[in-house]
Amino acid sequence: VTSHAADVTTLTERTRIRRLPERQVHDRRTLDDILDSGLLAHVALVDGGQPLSIPVAYARWGDQVVFHGSTGSRLFRALADGSPTCLTVTLLDGLVLARSAFESSMNYRSAMILGSCTVVEGTAKEEALEIITEHLLPDRWSDVRLPTRREMAATLVLSLPLSEWSVKVRAGGPEDPDEDVELPYWAGVVPITESFGTPIPVSNLAADIPVPAYISTWSRSPR
Amino acid sequence: VTSHAADVTTLTERTRIRRLPERQVHDRRTLDDILDSGLLAHVALVDGGQPLSIPVAYARWGDQVVFHGSTGSRLFRALADGSPTCLTVTLLDGLVLARSAFESSMNYRSAMILGSCTVVEGTAKEEALEIITEHLLPDRWSDVRLPTRREMAATLVLSLPLSEWSVKVRAGGPEDPDEDVELPYWAGVVPITESFGTPIPVSNLAADIPVPAYISTWSRSPR
Repeated sequence: VTSHAADVTTLTERTRIRRLPERQVHDRRTLDDILDSGLLAHVALVDGGQPLSIPVAYARWGDQVVFHGSTGSRLFRALADGSPTCLTVTLLDGLVLARSAFESSMNYRSAMILGSCTVVEGTAKEEALEIITEHLLPDRWSDVRLPTRREMAATLVLSLPLSEWSVKVRAGGPEDPDEDVELPYWAGVVPITESFGTPIPVSNLAADIPVPAYISTWSRSPR
Repeated sequence: VTSHAADVTTLTERTRIRRLPERQVHDRRTLDDILDSGLLAHVALVDGGQPLSIPVAYARWGDQVVFHGSTGSRLFRALADGSPTCLTVTLLDGLVLARSAFESSMNYRSAMILGSCTVVEGTAKEEALEIITEHLLPDRWSDVRLPTRREMAATLVLSLPLSEWSVKVRAGGPEDPDEDVELPYWAGVVPITESFGTPIPVSNLAADIPVPAYISTWSRSPR
């Protein structure tokens, strides 16, 4: 995986942020960091005039985001057919407690990618599944039974290029106006972190298989 | 806040899940639990044919979900005008590691609410802001400067009724087919939890304001 690919970005009229433009960030490194830190994306599509937002596992793979679903899913088939989409990854970093309710907020990093998907096929298809598995849990791909031909045929892998995107970040403490600073209320940030707990073996696991080091020692980098 | 309101649900053609229908849950208590456990929702809407999915803070308030934005936001104004929407809350509970890549999955709870928003006005407007604040951090509303008339005027509060919705849950360990159970790979679940860290006071906080107990002692209930 290319860690920070060349900036191939376009900031279009529909990805330019009008509200609080100071929160808009437009460097590719920040986009990559958000995508590489998240586990879950929400994919929006329009289904007969009705917008839908559905959760998916995903991974960044160079200049694209890949995710997978079932060939039996109507919504995934619509995406495969090129239905316009928006893939959003939001990392929640903290509650921002200002002295006033109005200035209170949340710290977050959110990436929104617009475009249309293409279907990943051929040798790239299994490679994309490897990229997704390794994104969720590094080193797992070499310690799992790989997909059969039948399983591959039941899997739809989609790719969305990182060409039209928007990143919004809110970080740091509250920004109370001067007249609020003397108010007798606590103000600051309550950090929010997502972490992995102790692995729970499946009930029918053979007794001679310990938790592998790549699982027990892996702690996701601080967000 | 009504903790478990009467079931006023309709399972429509567009909220019936066709893929993996065994993951569909349709009791109101599960819907309420998901909405009450989450901090972040993704709201989908269609903007000139382009679907968008944007993150928002929200809270359940009885038989509706409320969230707020700025009156200056074009997308929020479109929602206020009744643009069809989908609000999705997804809680990620764990990585499900099967012996095969194909059966590997994630444990999650996801609620999707379809409909159109209405604008919350009058006395209900400030009450909705209180509900959202208290959802994020119980007891904060009585320890913060309340909104001024000018601040209220700059805030748009939207309500989406819990009338058409769908809940999908995947829980428990991996379900390997019999022929995979003897494979020499570790299988089980790696739990994922979201937690609050040590509060960080803002740099200009008066020295005589300690972290209030409702912040320091509050741990979100296990997800």
